[in-house]
Amino acid sequence: MGIVLHDLAGDGDRRFSPYCWRIRMALAHKGLDYDTAPVTFSDIPGIGGGDHKTVPVLEDDGTFISESFDIACYLEEQYESRGTLFGGEGGKAACRFIESWANATLTPIIARACVKDIHDLIEEKDKPYFRETREKRLGGGLEDLQSQRDAHIENLHQALMPLHVMLGKQDWIGGIQPLYHDYIVFGTLQWPRVTSKVPLLKEDSRVAEWFERMLNLYDRLGAKMPARAA
Amino acid sequence: MGIVLHDLAGDGDRRFSPYCWRIRMALAHKGLDYDTAPVTFSDIPGIGGGDHKTVPVLEDDGTFISESFDIACYLEEQYESRGTLFGGEGGKAACRFIESWANATLTPIIARACVKDIHDLIEEKDKPYFRETREKRLGGGLEDLQSQRDAHIENLHQALMPLHVMLGKQDWIGGIQPLYHDYIVFGTLQWPRVTSKVPLLKEDSRVAEWFERMLNLYDRLGAKMPARAA
Repeated sequence: MGIVLHDLAGDGDRRFSPYCWRIRMALAHKGLDYDTAPVTFSDIPGIGGGDHKTVPVLEDDGTFISESFDIACYLEEQYESRGTLFGGEGGKAACRFIESWANATLTPIIARACVKDIHDLIEEKDKPYFRETREKRLGGGLEDLQSQRDAHIENLHQALMPLHVMLGKQDWIGGIQPLYHDYIVFGTLQWPRVTSKVPLLKEDSRVAEWFERMLNLYDRLGAKMPARAA
Repeated sequence: MGIVLHDLAGDGDRRFSPYCWRIRMALAHKGLDYDTAPVTFSDIPGIGGGDHKTVPVLEDDGTFISESFDIACYLEEQYESRGTLFGGEGGKAACRFIESWANATLTPIIARACVKDIHDLIEEKDKPYFRETREKRLGGGLEDLQSQRDAHIENLHQALMPLHVMLGKQDWIGGIQPLYHDYIVFGTLQWPRVTSKVPLLKEDSRVAEWFERMLNLYDRLGAKMPARAA
């Protein structure tokens, strides 16, 4: 049966989930063939007849795994002989920190900057659920949040400072090669690239240059998904 | 001759440099015997007759190495058979990110919160240099900066959120054991513990509990240096 990645889609076939992008990159890193199965928010609980709450869900020959970090650990163990995703136990442990940084620091800022744009591209039937959960989580109306976009973008540039500083020392968060370290942060930034009507990264910055390198990996896997900004 | 760590001291023998603490913990991790040689800011250029600008400087049988990250890499290579500091190449690369996070995100906030307290414990002869460089770097008078301490402390708790989230998953940044990952962040937080007249960490938080575990490692190496707050 092979591998199937159940992946969030909106606006036709626009794949925007940051967590799914982490796994798409990890699958490409391992050189694994896979199919993707697009789902909408309301399809998630029905995947594989299971009781899944979030995507990605990875299906590998009848086994279902959810939670992006657990999927990455599964791929690392199950496909050990293909290039390492973590570069050892110290890298895997550090990825838990990088994930927490991306999710706790970058995600709330990015969400505020483009939540209304995301709302506009998901299925009509999912919009009430999306608006209710996101307004509660982010503490404000979608339109109000997005009206402060310039301030959110400035906050994002500040929050990316550690990555900017690090990129003065090495080309990838993984060091001399991209690792899951990079895919975590890439997923978080691919999400607004695919959904936001305006670009969020500072042009010609070190972070933007790294992101461009990321987009071009694996036969331009990330670049092939069109940016939403004109 | 063995190993000598040239380490910043103030107020008698109070060791407060965040970068020196990273290396003290790394030396203990490797189980290496060493002496420390206390220096003041104005002593730094004279260490080993060299032209050093910062501490730590590690002297190992006549070889001098500066920059904490380079020292950690040296120790990992030179003393390879003693427990790994990085847990592999992926861990080492990630430490560059963790270092950039600590230095770019935590350090400026902590500096604002306790810069006047630090000023008060260094040697009289170093005070004019310290005041001038720090006021320029932090963009304000030492007394003005410290008068906003409560706001800086609140910012620090926010900035530590990624560590808080990660500690819900594992006990150490290094995973099941402390690694250089942990020593980086420990050094940055030991600095205000040793210098600040008020504690900066949120009591009973996950971060405070992790910091307590760190203080107790290696025969209470960190804990033996007294906290400055009553």
